Amino acid sequence: MTTEKILENFVIEGPEIYLPALSVDCVILGFHENQLKVLLLKMKNAKQWALPGGFILKNEEIDKAAKRVLKERTGLSEIFLQQFNVFGKPKRSDANFHRQYFQKNGIEIKSDHWLFQRFVTVGYYALVEYSYVNPRVDNFSDQCTWRDINDLPELMMDHKQILDKALETLRSHLGYHPIGYNLLPEKFTMPQLQKLYETILDKKLDRRNFQRKILSYGILKRLNEVKEGVAHKAPYLYSFDLRKYQQALKDGLQGRW
Amino acid sequence: MTTEKILENFVIEGPEIYLPALSVDCVILGFHENQLKVLLLKMKNAKQWALPGGFILKNEEIDKAAKRVLKERTGLSEIFLQQFNVFGKPKRSDANFHRQYFQKNGIEIKSDHWLFQRFVTVGYYALVEYSYVNPRVDNFSDQCTWRDINDLPELMMDHKQILDKALETLRSHLGYHPIGYNLLPEKFTMPQLQKLYETILDKKLDRRNFQRKILSYGILKRLNEVKEGVAHKAPYLYSFDLRKYQQALKDGLQGRW
Repeated sequence: MTTEKILENFVIEGPEIYLPALSVDCVILGFHENQLKVLLLKMKNAKQWALPGGFILKNEEIDKAAKRVLKERTGLSEIFLQQFNVFGKPKRSDANFHRQYFQKNGIEIKSDHWLFQRFVTVGYYALVEYSYVNPRVDNFSDQCTWRDINDLPELMMDHKQILDKALETLRSHLGYHPIGYNLLPEKFTMPQLQKLYETILDKKLDRRNFQRKILSYGILKRLNEVKEGVAHKAPYLYSFDLRKYQQALKDGLQGRW
Repeated sequence: MTTEKILENFVIEGPEIYLPALSVDCVILGFHENQLKVLLLKMKNAKQWALPGGFILKNEEIDKAAKRVLKERTGLSEIFLQQFNVFGKPKRSDANFHRQYFQKNGIEIKSDHWLFQRFVTVGYYALVEYSYVNPRVDNFSDQCTWRDINDLPELMMDHKQILDKALETLRSHLGYHPIGYNLLPEKFTMPQLQKLYETILDKKLDRRNFQRKILSYGILKRLNEVKEGVAHKAPYLYSFDLRKYQQALKDGLQGRW
């Protein structure tokens, strides 16, 4: 099917099959080699980039819609999406953006079309090791790639605010939830774990304070091995105590009251 | 205006002035004399009770809608509402409930009316000292009262699930956020603070562990006073170190990384 045909179908089908006024947007953050990236789509014939997002089928659960949308737009599945905030400013919907996007792709839409109403969007986020996932492009976009969060392209509508809020949520979660499983190799050094925290927080941490604090949570096991290939003062290897890690995910790092 | 007239107006105006498919519901939890209660409305001529909730004006921010709805339905203002979850199961809307409610109040509504569509609802919660607030009843209800969370009446639709999720969220927040300011007197004893935690968590806590843990956060100041009117072994009085309390609200009880 040509892009024009796909868009034409969407314009006809959209109002029939999707809920009015509500959408979902996914902030997929990726960590790899001490960089934090976000998965973005570049829509066809548009200058701006977008978070993978979309609409909710009339009979579909919201959380499932977020998973489906992410799968359809990027090819990614099996990603644990966390609902984090509802974005409900009346002016967040940008009818102009949509009108121009469809125009540039050869489609005219009436100004009272479903797409031009006010949409509230439910934000979801996830943090993944990005070498494990292979994003692919969907029919509305011509690129789907990881972009460095310190070097972002222009984003459509309020997608920059949605991304910022997701980062803020992730950073505040670091204070009371463990992180690192599935992001680091099975065995890792203390500097590797510290670097993960520093990358997400976007700041340097004191080595001794970090080590004292992270060890106090009891989620790490120090192995009787040191990192190989390091000439002298080879650092110890650690792994997560998965049972305690999962307990801390559930209860928070303070543990139960 | 008679109830019938008010409902008639709502049926006519509703689809014109409110967003489709989206609503808000507020879980207002109240703490007083070691009891945890929730603010519920009993709708006119209905058996079930309901959380204070309502719809979003077409040009209104979601968070503001939640505040307005709470004010209109209960008279409460100045309450810090926290968005906590979106409830988006397709079958959560109960057209039957609404049809019967309006029928019993003398109004027939067409089955394709705006009110009978699927509604996704955004949940908000707050925890207040309930002797500070004076709820009043709105036009749709004949009671608006605090109900003990351990002795709840039958709730409409999925309002019990929304309430349970709010309680779960509040309880998990206890692990990493301070609580008690505005809920306890300015000067309080350790047993009073422990009782607050026990009431919210609905379980007994070990006295020594509680004291050790809560003091380790550095948010309390021990005063050079003991509780008056206690014959022997009078307990010390404490107050919150407001600066540290507020910092911990922002950063979580772990403090900053």
